[in-house]
Amino acid sequence: MNPRRISDSALRRLSHYLRFLEVFEEEGRETISSWELAERGGTTSAQVRKDLSHFGSFGKRGLGYPVPELRARLAGILGVGRRWDVAIVGAGKLGAALYAYDGFRRRGFHVAAVFDDDPRKIGRRWGQLEVEDVGVLGASVRAKGVEIGIVVTPADAAQEVADALVAAGINAILNFAPRKLVLPESVTLRDVNLAIELEALCFALTHEGWIVGR
Amino acid sequence: MNPRRISDSALRRLSHYLRFLEVFEEEGRETISSWELAERGGTTSAQVRKDLSHFGSFGKRGLGYPVPELRARLAGILGVGRRWDVAIVGAGKLGAALYAYDGFRRRGFHVAAVFDDDPRKIGRRWGQLEVEDVGVLGASVRAKGVEIGIVVTPADAAQEVADALVAAGINAILNFAPRKLVLPESVTLRDVNLAIELEALCFALTHEGWIVGR
Repeated sequence: MNPRRISDSALRRLSHYLRFLEVFEEEGRETISSWELAERGGTTSAQVRKDLSHFGSFGKRGLGYPVPELRARLAGILGVGRRWDVAIVGAGKLGAALYAYDGFRRRGFHVAAVFDDDPRKIGRRWGQLEVEDVGVLGASVRAKGVEIGIVVTPADAAQEVADALVAAGINAILNFAPRKLVLPESVTLRDVNLAIELEALCFALTHEGWIVGR
Repeated sequence: MNPRRISDSALRRLSHYLRFLEVFEEEGRETISSWELAERGGTTSAQVRKDLSHFGSFGKRGLGYPVPELRARLAGILGVGRRWDVAIVGAGKLGAALYAYDGFRRRGFHVAAVFDDDPRKIGRRWGQLEVEDVGVLGASVRAKGVEIGIVVTPADAAQEVADALVAAGINAILNFAPRKLVLPESVTLRDVNLAIELEALCFALTHEGWIVGR
């Protein structure tokens, strides 16, 4: 079977649709049009229909989409609405902020382990957790059933840490270290590079009149 | 004059090229081929040449690019290598992590002000700074010459805060709040939505065999 493909931008739009649908459901709305979803998501209704069509048929022409059903199906498609166990590697300030981040908890992301290689950090309590030695990462990640790794180490440690996560069976990595990771194709990688986001702003401020496109 | 346009992905590649060039320059390398830059950046040499061609001519065919010169020109193009004053709105854990983030300092981003609306946080010292009341944001941002705003508030406060930043003359905003901001076209906006990045990983873990494209 050929692998099916979805673009980053389509996937982001699905996440945004889900958020709007959650709000509409809370407000007690029963149906929503592709036009309304499009307006909220800054796209077109044709794009909304196309994004959803990857995953079967939804709603009836002219009647709009039933809100609770589309919300539940989108949550299922995205794989949210269940608990995901996450390991954070790098017990610095950014790691601590992610650990405490409400937005993760609310979406079902549960930090099951935190690792560092600094003896001053290993053994410290983080809520219910204790910072573990990165040397036991493999055994700990397997024992705890962690499925997602978050890399918040300095750049020069990131590849080694990512390799250890992959060796421990992790297939999904969110990388905050400012370094391109080389990983097997079977591993899904998302990079969040904060300095690069800021540089895009600097570019725009430096080049008045240029449009930084999406 | 028609505005010129650069895509997000091209801009990210320029930032990556700059990082590689910095490393090469430290290593004392004098020239680099588009092929080497391409390999590091996970792209093609044709793409490298195209990305750079937006900004004039670089290097000589067959001789590669002179490393220090290309590094300096790319830094100039991106607008880094000077100091940028930044305001953080939202003095929570994520705001604190960004404040302390070495990667920002190293790239010349200087946090000149931190704001919050929580009386328990206002007045607290953050290094050389004191957390200010968001009510004085406009006056403070102007007085300090802040050019970039970072929004790390809860979702429901983000639009109001962004509006206040724009009213204070800020034209570049990095938004971490999980909400689509509506801003004038003259303002450049980058969104970092951590939960959405994690959802892309969940999608990949839930849909084995799908490729989540770039």
